Amino acid sequence: MQKPSIPKGTRDFSPEEMAKRNYIFDTIKEVYRIYGFSQIETPAMENLSTLMGKYGEEGDKLLFKILNSGDFLKDVNHDDITEGSSVKTANKISEKGLRYDLTVPFARYVVMHRNEITFPFKRFQIQPVWRADRPQRGRYREFFQCDADIVGSDSLLNEIELILIIDEVFSRLGINVSIRINNRKILSGIAEIIGESEKITEFTVAIDKLEKIGLESVNKELAASGFTEESINKLQPILKLSGSTKEKTAQLTEILAESEIGLKGVAEMDYLLDKSKAISLKNEVVLDLTLARGLNYYTGTIIEVKALDAEMGSITGGGRYDNLTGIFGMPGVSGVGISFGADRIYDVLTQLNLFPENLTHSTELMFVNFGEKEENYILPLITSLRGSGIRSELYPDAAKMKKQLTYANNNNIPFVAMVGENEMKNNTISLKNMKTGEQKSVSLQEIKDIIKGH
Amino acid sequence: MQKPSIPKGTRDFSPEEMAKRNYIFDTIKEVYRIYGFSQIETPAMENLSTLMGKYGEEGDKLLFKILNSGDFLKDVNHDDITEGSSVKTANKISEKGLRYDLTVPFARYVVMHRNEITFPFKRFQIQPVWRADRPQRGRYREFFQCDADIVGSDSLLNEIELILIIDEVFSRLGINVSIRINNRKILSGIAEIIGESEKITEFTVAIDKLEKIGLESVNKELAASGFTEESINKLQPILKLSGSTKEKTAQLTEILAESEIGLKGVAEMDYLLDKSKAISLKNEVVLDLTLARGLNYYTGTIIEVKALDAEMGSITGGGRYDNLTGIFGMPGVSGVGISFGADRIYDVLTQLNLFPENLTHSTELMFVNFGEKEENYILPLITSLRGSGIRSELYPDAAKMKKQLTYANNNNIPFVAMVGENEMKNNTISLKNMKTGEQKSVSLQEIKDIIKGH
Repeated sequence: MQKPSIPKGTRDFSPEEMAKRNYIFDTIKEVYRIYGFSQIETPAMENLSTLMGKYGEEGDKLLFKILNSGDFLKDVNHDDITEGSSVKTANKISEKGLRYDLTVPFARYVVMHRNEITFPFKRFQIQPVWRADRPQRGRYREFFQCDADIVGSDSLLNEIELILIIDEVFSRLGINVSIRINNRKILSGIAEIIGESEKITEFTVAIDKLEKIGLESVNKELAASGFTEESINKLQPILKLSGSTKEKTAQLTEILAESEIGLKGVAEMDYLLDKSKAISLKNEVVLDLTLARGLNYYTGTIIEVKALDAEMGSITGGGRYDNLTGIFGMPGVSGVGISFGADRIYDVLTQLNLFPENLTHSTELMFVNFGEKEENYILPLITSLRGSGIRSELYPDAAKMKKQLTYANNNNIPFVAMVGENEMKNNTISLKNMKTGEQKSVSLQEIKDIIKGH
Repeated sequence: MQKPSIPKGTRDFSPEEMAKRNYIFDTIKEVYRIYGFSQIETPAMENLSTLMGKYGEEGDKLLFKILNSGDFLKDVNHDDITEGSSVKTANKISEKGLRYDLTVPFARYVVMHRNEITFPFKRFQIQPVWRADRPQRGRYREFFQCDADIVGSDSLLNEIELILIIDEVFSRLGINVSIRINNRKILSGIAEIIGESEKITEFTVAIDKLEKIGLESVNKELAASGFTEESINKLQPILKLSGSTKEKTAQLTEILAESEIGLKGVAEMDYLLDKSKAISLKNEVVLDLTLARGLNYYTGTIIEVKALDAEMGSITGGGRYDNLTGIFGMPGVSGVGISFGADRIYDVLTQLNLFPENLTHSTELMFVNFGEKEENYILPLITSLRGSGIRSELYPDAAKMKKQLTYANNNNIPFVAMVGENEMKNNTISLKNMKTGEQKSVSLQEIKDIIKGH
């Protein structure tokens, strides 16, 4: 008999963990909904033709591929084995793969359902994705993404809405965050101004490390990447930008005076910063030029959120992209989206002890079972309590009192009710508060009041 | 550019479908919770060693297998191809598969987490499962199961709880159902009494068809299966049982007088019928001797639910099983469970037009966008509305009125608000009811009252 296990990088979620996860998902969903986003879901399996080539060469390797059903070997020949080409052979025996993110399936959805959709389309989607990454602390092979996107509108008001959503979600969760924004157009402008437009990737990779390794090392890295001395010199005032956010964008406007795209980026940035200020958010919105996440992908605003009081990487990210659906033959659909990192948010809430105390995942009231006569008496009572929305149960066996109370204790059931001869006669219930140990004789209505007020 | 598609047997769910599906899932979840069940989740992927051999030979074939990551061909040789044995080769290149149901992963969960669980363990689980079945109307390759089980208790009170849950869920959904119950022990008893114990499968397959093909054809089929004339004769009074449920069990008690197991089954049946009557359910509970679902699996009570006013097979099923976890080396864990068929319930609700009318999947209020000045005026208003839980949005662009109203119309947004020069001056909002066409000038507070009362 083998000892059962689960695939590495995957997890079971216990009742307690589910309650905490649901708390996060429900908070995000509720905020998405009050902001007018509608939920969709897509299948776990997509055709490999939909997924392949969308995440770079590395991404293709990390796709979980599903073996064709039935006689999957029928198109395979000797050479497929002799060559030892796993990639080529995989394509012959597998047509489907597991969803790698929610963005590509969403793009596919938009194209397939274009005739049912009235744009702008505001959708949210909370589903698991799968990646054959090497599992490590905090990185899983199955994890949930919580995405919201608005597609089919270029308006910067959409960015504002997403910033409002981020602000609202983290306020509700009680996490203080810094909402950091950048703009791909500003980065393009800088690269243009210093004369290194074709090296924008190396440039952003280097300045991304500014905080970690310092200005001098960044300059060395740029030189090693082939940046001219002149370009590095031109870059210095930008890397040393200081003052308030407003002062920074003013300096950028001067520096980028000769770059059309750069100025456009600064104008967008100014709009977002001004509006964010006007609507008085609970969390700060700051310009962060070192932000370059998903650069190949984003074309305008880039957003990243960090928890202020916990050691943790980005807990939410997003940005504006053009041409989401171009890969599927539907050009000209611009959009902007964000994605909450549920697993990291879970870890932050745990670190900071911010999960609500009354996050009940279990029964609120357990009736002790003394035997069949009492059972018959209790069943209508429990039906009434359940009718009032109180999570209640009757222990299924007339087991020893100690066993029944241990069950209540281990399951964190806060109240235990006892109904014996006396109680049945007097039409009362003995209610025990499992935390304080206090026990008193109450009526059914009193139980409802006590538990609801708890 | 290929036209995108999704794998056959899978589905996208639109905002409207999601709202309807959530209505079903939320109803089931809420009832599970008030009955004291705790939610768990398990990974989509399980080790094939966990899944294989648990669903019969046919089930093994229907498992979706996942290609090993990296160089999956390294253990494959020429013979694996030459022999053309897809099954054998599959085992060499695939170690994981997609969950086929929620029962086997639950058994695996119980064994792996036995030290954290205090039995009896009442868990519910609502997750998708995948089967490589031939897709057809109403049968999908990806579909959700909604299971609840109580394991580690033999008490018949658990069966009662599950019957109560079924009654409550369908009352809440407004579907009139017939809760049909049988008992494997009664079937065993009958097979014993007529002297055909070893042919219990053929026997149940035949009587399962009673309603469809009639008594005479059933008798013919039994004879063809090798039942003796004597055994068929002995069976006749059982197949012709009539009268009330109570009268039927009384007759069964007489007929099964010589079968210990048969009498035990009748006693269990009597207990459930009596208790169900005492607690005055909203739906009927009836004895149905032709019920034999999952016979290899169930050892006591068998439950099946049929909608009374719709043409549809079983919409919920379940029963008692012994030794759930024996396959994973943990013997002696008995349990009883049910599973709601969400897709069929969806179809019944659609057929009977029972989805609530106000099942809003979208925004409740859209502000028309007239330009930046109005935007700035509206943003704080909309923040206040959202703070009151009203799903609201501001159209992101100052597009033509007609386009904005079409958007509201197509998305079934019931109210549209307009704020122009006049409204800003008078501190009012023009609110248009999109259904009636009625338009009036109101205050922010009035909007809240109107929409909440809607």
